[in-house]
Amino acid sequence: MITSLSLILDKSKVYNNLKRMALRASQSGIQFRPHFKTHQSLEIGNWFREFPINGITVSSLKMAKYFASDGWKSITVAIPFNVLEVEDINNLASEIDLRVLVVDPNSVVKLDQRLTSRISVYIEIDPEYGRSGILYEDTEQIEKVISAVNASEKLTLHGFYSHAGHSYKCRSSNEIAKFIQPIVDRLSQLRIKYDLPICFGDTPSCSVLKDFGEIDELSPGNFVFYDWIQTQIGSCNYEDIAVAVKCPVLAKYPSRNELLIHGGAVHFSKDFDVLKNGESYFGQVVETNDRNWGDPVKGCYLKSISQEHGVIKCSDEFFNKTEPGDIVTIFPIHSCLTADLMGNYLTIEGEKITHLSEKKI
Amino acid sequence: MITSLSLILDKSKVYNNLKRMALRASQSGIQFRPHFKTHQSLEIGNWFREFPINGITVSSLKMAKYFASDGWKSITVAIPFNVLEVEDINNLASEIDLRVLVVDPNSVVKLDQRLTSRISVYIEIDPEYGRSGILYEDTEQIEKVISAVNASEKLTLHGFYSHAGHSYKCRSSNEIAKFIQPIVDRLSQLRIKYDLPICFGDTPSCSVLKDFGEIDELSPGNFVFYDWIQTQIGSCNYEDIAVAVKCPVLAKYPSRNELLIHGGAVHFSKDFDVLKNGESYFGQVVETNDRNWGDPVKGCYLKSISQEHGVIKCSDEFFNKTEPGDIVTIFPIHSCLTADLMGNYLTIEGEKITHLSEKKI
Repeated sequence: MITSLSLILDKSKVYNNLKRMALRASQSGIQFRPHFKTHQSLEIGNWFREFPINGITVSSLKMAKYFASDGWKSITVAIPFNVLEVEDINNLASEIDLRVLVVDPNSVVKLDQRLTSRISVYIEIDPEYGRSGILYEDTEQIEKVISAVNASEKLTLHGFYSHAGHSYKCRSSNEIAKFIQPIVDRLSQLRIKYDLPICFGDTPSCSVLKDFGEIDELSPGNFVFYDWIQTQIGSCNYEDIAVAVKCPVLAKYPSRNELLIHGGAVHFSKDFDVLKNGESYFGQVVETNDRNWGDPVKGCYLKSISQEHGVIKCSDEFFNKTEPGDIVTIFPIHSCLTADLMGNYLTIEGEKITHLSEKKI
Repeated sequence: MITSLSLILDKSKVYNNLKRMALRASQSGIQFRPHFKTHQSLEIGNWFREFPINGITVSSLKMAKYFASDGWKSITVAIPFNVLEVEDINNLASEIDLRVLVVDPNSVVKLDQRLTSRISVYIEIDPEYGRSGILYEDTEQIEKVISAVNASEKLTLHGFYSHAGHSYKCRSSNEIAKFIQPIVDRLSQLRIKYDLPICFGDTPSCSVLKDFGEIDELSPGNFVFYDWIQTQIGSCNYEDIAVAVKCPVLAKYPSRNELLIHGGAVHFSKDFDVLKNGESYFGQVVETNDRNWGDPVKGCYLKSISQEHGVIKCSDEFFNKTEPGDIVTIFPIHSCLTADLMGNYLTIEGEKITHLSEKKI
């Protein structure tokens, strides 16, 4: 019996999500290089090994070290490198095929001077998302970086890397496809112009696109679990969501049809979606079936969270049948952040699964 | 030299914040029962021992166990108890003066039946914040709970507990005082009517109020560090903020006057404040002085964050003088969540300070 706040994982859903994405890549003749930032788990990482993947992607050097320690031999750290951590980069690059992102010629020179091992680099291209990378029309900067990498002693130019995080603004699978197609077209032009492979991969695009153009490698991450926001974006159905949070009910407040639960910002994160009336909410209530879960419960959502407290707005029916001492089940808005905060998983079968952010106590 | 993302702590500021709040309590003849949810650190907890405090407050049973293991003998868990965790409650109550919150008579009966040790309870009063507790006008429910506690075998009624979290909506110290005074008056009426002590304590109110009415115990938490949102609420000056995040600069983007840093939602949390133009932001840039920091830098703020990436919007001057490989310093919007995510502190002097959420790796 679950007695305290727990992040529950449905292994069969993870496996299906993984199989489907691996198949999408192989059917398009694209290499699969999945992002491990969502699960951050050695055990879950191992479930990928039976699929044809050519390496993995992570979002920090710490994560790269963690997975390298478990035998992963080709890892992309999908963020421009931190030159202050060159010692760690050197250590890791002496053991594995380490790939980092570069965006400017000066940093390339600085890195080259301090490297003791060879590494591969991707030039990061910004598909007008506005987070990181060189804008694809800025061929001057792209060519300066290509020259700097080619002139370096220790760097090998692998290709381009591009993340279209602004696909998260879409609200249907059609919208995703329409939004992403011109981006894929422009990346394909770069691929042809420079004859360099392209690695690409936000979960909405990778879940929906039928034609990946000239793209060579796919690196989505969130698809392994999906989450409530992905159902709203149009990337998946709620049946695909592989993690949910079990929260103890602490109190009920009839005057406002609300339940107080143990489950707050240090568990769910403060990522939110917006209701039709403009209000924010932090999770979607689903039916509780012992350790498992069922369908979303209409009109029941995590209305507000503080550090450890959560308030659930209820339908009359759900309110009436729920009591303090019960457990309610909630889909997180953003599974990557929830998993990082919770620091471990419990499978429906009761097996504990570790996470890089596992706590000492 | 700092080479990677770090949460820096200024011990002297913590000490001053602590001393000032302890003095406010003692000068008003109020017992000080500080909330440890913000720092969640055994070492920082020890710094409180030289001040006259009558016990501590925490927000989870896990946190209570953590501090009990370090010799704290009187601990309030300031959230309605989870009856499913009664075994942990019993274990802890056999060792220390454990106090929990109660809000309904049925749960009081359930708890009483399963307790093996005596515990104290506070009846939680909702000062129209809408999170948890019995509304103060609901004397019928208050009296039902009083009767249930008095009829129980193992529960001792200690008093009332009330948290006015809606003070966070204020935007000046005058506004806080005006907003909180009527709440303190109503709590004081309850105190007189039922002759039961009142424990109260959000940081804005405790930082600003001159007259605490009939309140008996103060339990603020955030004041130990404060943070950027508290300067906007009107609880403190930026000189009082005791923690800041040091983030490596990874790239600069001249076309948008923005810097990319290592520092994202898994470090800062997604708590935000809102600029005058309506845009959200996730942290305030301050001057970097080696391991220390200086004044806020006008026009420079953490504009957006994803899992590990942060984008800083810069003034021209700040942009021009900052390069990849530099470190920038940022006040978090909400220090409680940032500390919980970071999992440890580094003092300006270079000492490592632990946190309950410290990670295994």
